[in-house]
Amino acid sequence: MQSDRILLAHGSGGTMMRDLINDVFMTGFSDDILMRMDDAASLDFPGSRLAFSTDTYVVNPLFFPGADIGRLAVCGTVNDVATSGAKPLYLSVGFVLEEGFPVEDLRRILVSMRDAAAEAGVRIVTGDTKVVEKGHGDGCYINTAGVGVLAEGLDLSGSNCQAGDVVLLSGTLGDHGIAVISTREGLTFSTDIESDAAPLGALIAAVLAVAPDTRCFRDPTRGGLASTLNELAGASGVCITIDETLVPVREQVRGACEMLGYDVFQVANEGKMVTVVPASQAEAALAAMRDAPYGEDAAIIGEVAESPAGRVYVQTAFGATRIMDMLVGEQLPRIC
Amino acid sequence: MQSDRILLAHGSGGTMMRDLINDVFMTGFSDDILMRMDDAASLDFPGSRLAFSTDTYVVNPLFFPGADIGRLAVCGTVNDVATSGAKPLYLSVGFVLEEGFPVEDLRRILVSMRDAAAEAGVRIVTGDTKVVEKGHGDGCYINTAGVGVLAEGLDLSGSNCQAGDVVLLSGTLGDHGIAVISTREGLTFSTDIESDAAPLGALIAAVLAVAPDTRCFRDPTRGGLASTLNELAGASGVCITIDETLVPVREQVRGACEMLGYDVFQVANEGKMVTVVPASQAEAALAAMRDAPYGEDAAIIGEVAESPAGRVYVQTAFGATRIMDMLVGEQLPRIC
Repeated sequence: MQSDRILLAHGSGGTMMRDLINDVFMTGFSDDILMRMDDAASLDFPGSRLAFSTDTYVVNPLFFPGADIGRLAVCGTVNDVATSGAKPLYLSVGFVLEEGFPVEDLRRILVSMRDAAAEAGVRIVTGDTKVVEKGHGDGCYINTAGVGVLAEGLDLSGSNCQAGDVVLLSGTLGDHGIAVISTREGLTFSTDIESDAAPLGALIAAVLAVAPDTRCFRDPTRGGLASTLNELAGASGVCITIDETLVPVREQVRGACEMLGYDVFQVANEGKMVTVVPASQAEAALAAMRDAPYGEDAAIIGEVAESPAGRVYVQTAFGATRIMDMLVGEQLPRIC
Repeated sequence: MQSDRILLAHGSGGTMMRDLINDVFMTGFSDDILMRMDDAASLDFPGSRLAFSTDTYVVNPLFFPGADIGRLAVCGTVNDVATSGAKPLYLSVGFVLEEGFPVEDLRRILVSMRDAAAEAGVRIVTGDTKVVEKGHGDGCYINTAGVGVLAEGLDLSGSNCQAGDVVLLSGTLGDHGIAVISTREGLTFSTDIESDAAPLGALIAAVLAVAPDTRCFRDPTRGGLASTLNELAGASGVCITIDETLVPVREQVRGACEMLGYDVFQVANEGKMVTVVPASQAEAALAAMRDAPYGEDAAIIGEVAESPAGRVYVQTAFGATRIMDMLVGEQLPRIC
């Protein structure tokens, strides 16, 4: 690289873009399919059904305790693919870089992506880079799309939940959102709170192995647990009730939420999974989650009833019941 | 929709995002897989090999003669997938919207995407929307990723070209780049020049049907024909020579390039395909291209020799030979 900053010419399709791809991206990812440099990756696909998902990541700041935009961009899409019950296999990655962005920061992000992909067992096989003028974009936006192979007959969906089912959560709430907002605002309690960004494919596979009638998985990212549960209640036409005392939340996160006026149920997570299973398979699913990577704090947090359809309730520590609303307006912009 | 402009809350994961998805995206695309609203789309996949590609589109302006960012985002990725010889099946789409972006413009872009997807025979099955603060982003960026099914045994690659092969181009050069730059700069000759953005899957399939030993397809987008041919010459370790008099270019585009000081070989195209075939199959490939949609101006433009490896030459109208260089630096930022 002849420049330590991204220039408009790095997005030109000419020699400087070729050099950026060779020196930075190919060195960073070093996958032999990617290195063929064809316009599309040609890939083996071992099944007759696939899962396909995408997310763009615009988190601000790019680096924060526990993770960065690169780890987030791999884990987030891997988890979305995995929620279908599929085994994630391949990722695409598209960068929008702002003129002037430090090449060292890009290299650091690529290392994060490579490590997260290795941990998740997926390959980054195709990519694209665009450069926009200084003052547009914001350093680095990343889109990833993911493809996974889906077992025959598996049909997980947010619309499958039934009265009598049990709701599980794979660990503590709020860590990612509070880690990012603390860093952005320069708050001092940030030192103890780290993003939970993690790939959850192995945890999902472990649950499916012992709870074959699992209704669905959903990762409570933007909008937090409240959005996830309201979406499930709406899609399935059921009522979900959560026992607040059963929901794992770190002390520091609870404190930060109180101080900042956030509802922890509405704060984003990037390494947690919600799953709904029949009551008869709930204990097995819980045990499998707790044994799986990133599942040690898993808990049964609630149950599904018939009515009122589309509603989510919280039973509080004081025995009262309140509605768990979806976020109205904006709480934490650019959280993922 | 309660607002006619995009607000930060439309990216929150809360109720306003849900309303945006329901009112604008679902209405715009209306695909029953997309409307299941699960985090990943579950899809039938009729083969054992797949092609996978992605591009992010940051074109400025968003609307220009002949197309817009939406048509571009569908056609560009469909064409990248199709270059492998695959039949494109599914697209993901990720939006980065700037706070304040008019919802009417978004709806117009979605109509373009829906129409282009229908023309290309692909389904938009999964998506994501992020919103960034006013002054970041630039109205609307779109990432698409595409999945196609690849026939057993097909192995097209830019590294397959051999001495004696023939180079074909599916139509006129430079239309897209000149249409966009004319609109951006408010130049008056823009009235006659329209972007060529078009899906080329049918054209590729038609060529493959009659030229089974086709070496590769490549769409000459950013960096134009010059980047494409230099990439092929480099990947295959061959020399490519083009006869300038055989390359189709519209009179208005040629004039605009002369006026603006652009080399038409370096200007972006979004509805053209370069293909390299064995000499024995060149006439059949040409005839198939000319009969296919968007191929009526197809031409044989050059040939492949052994050495000097990695070089691309142009024979000019005056009988001289010059090197066709890749673009150095930046010519037309934000062209796609």
